[in-house]
Amino acid sequence: MSTEPVRVEVIALAGLPEVRPGDDLEAMIGDALEATEGVLPVQPGDVLVVTQKIVSKAEGAVVDLRTVTPSARAMEWADEWGRDARQIEVVLQQARRIVRMERGVLITETHHGFVCANGGIDASNVGPGSGDVVTLLPVDPDASAARIRTALRSRFGADIPVIVSDSFGRPWRWGIVDVALGVSGLLPLEDLRGQPDADGRVMRTTVRAVADELASAAELALGKTAARPVALVRGANPPLGEGTIGDLVMAPENDLFR
Amino acid sequence: MSTEPVRVEVIALAGLPEVRPGDDLEAMIGDALEATEGVLPVQPGDVLVVTQKIVSKAEGAVVDLRTVTPSARAMEWADEWGRDARQIEVVLQQARRIVRMERGVLITETHHGFVCANGGIDASNVGPGSGDVVTLLPVDPDASAARIRTALRSRFGADIPVIVSDSFGRPWRWGIVDVALGVSGLLPLEDLRGQPDADGRVMRTTVRAVADELASAAELALGKTAARPVALVRGANPPLGEGTIGDLVMAPENDLFR
Repeated sequence: MSTEPVRVEVIALAGLPEVRPGDDLEAMIGDALEATEGVLPVQPGDVLVVTQKIVSKAEGAVVDLRTVTPSARAMEWADEWGRDARQIEVVLQQARRIVRMERGVLITETHHGFVCANGGIDASNVGPGSGDVVTLLPVDPDASAARIRTALRSRFGADIPVIVSDSFGRPWRWGIVDVALGVSGLLPLEDLRGQPDADGRVMRTTVRAVADELASAAELALGKTAARPVALVRGANPPLGEGTIGDLVMAPENDLFR
Repeated sequence: MSTEPVRVEVIALAGLPEVRPGDDLEAMIGDALEATEGVLPVQPGDVLVVTQKIVSKAEGAVVDLRTVTPSARAMEWADEWGRDARQIEVVLQQARRIVRMERGVLITETHHGFVCANGGIDASNVGPGSGDVVTLLPVDPDASAARIRTALRSRFGADIPVIVSDSFGRPWRWGIVDVALGVSGLLPLEDLRGQPDADGRVMRTTVRAVADELASAAELALGKTAARPVALVRGANPPLGEGTIGDLVMAPENDLFR
């Protein structure tokens, strides 16, 4: 019955300048760390959460819809449901599999194995005057996270695990929550199986998706716009190691819902 | 490009004594608030997250498996997959619908509309010497949250929204995350549709499951055992109001995955 509080702190970093294809995102994030009061030096247990959109933009994972010629299928469905046929075409082109395409909802499985609405392709917050540009998901979000981690380690001399996050819907519940798309330097699953619970008995089946919980926690501070796209989570102490997002994404043969 | 940090803090409250059926949980949580350094007075924007198990225990939502006679169906399936037939029987009795019952995985829809493994019925952390006792979900988690909120308002003169949380698995991704089971004093969905995004253009489709993100954030501080079952989340400023968990749970006719 300790009365010492256990605290986890989520700190939205200072805003980044508008990110454009080819920008040095790692340098911009490092500058944001330096510009934010009280976050440096990095502490053991810290995690950096970087939202997908700025990663995609820096990596040039964007498509100008004015260059897209929609297929008949995309045009027909977009017309029926009041959507932009060019964006539907991009979603279909990026999909490994169409999970649902009905009632105006288009859910696909991406090449990464993510199952998400519109293949994670998003039109909002891609910069002033760019209403026709959409962002794709990063090609390899683990590699994106690793590049950021490596650059920050060089600059600050400290190894900080990095999560690239995005907002996904879920079956059964309304609303989107932020989840992990890519990780570097942490294990996205914390395996507590076989560890004793509070009564000293065994918790046999608990595996926590700690990377997803970190992404959701970060969103609470990052808020509603893209003005603050990076957060530091301090005190959560996730399990460290060379994990990949593949540890978190179920292979179809293990998933009773595919 | 403000450099003022935006912070959200998750504070695990001091541990509660072992909770038993009939205990005054509201008083115990109030005592934990008082025993935890730096949380009182309550601040605007605070949310209290209370994990399901202590709520179920205080409300007597527990079943002694020694009183359960499993059906032939429960016995056969439990035998095939190395499970406790009495617990399977309780899951089946509590289910409104069986979603999946294959490969050793039993997913049901509860009377609340939650779709979860084993109907949210859990054997761990129910107190010393109680290896045969399982907790059910609270009958009405919104009402549980409201009782806690009302009692704390009387005691501290401040209205603090309350979330009752539990750990659920999800399709497509390994691992469990904490989500909201019941709410009082906040809107579980933050509807940002029609609000301008960072570029001043319109985000048309964003509804955030903020109650689920708060539950996940709380879990990061509450950690791996039941020793700290209550957290205060400070600075997240969720939308206030008389929401219910029904706002968050999809009706079957809206859910493409049921």
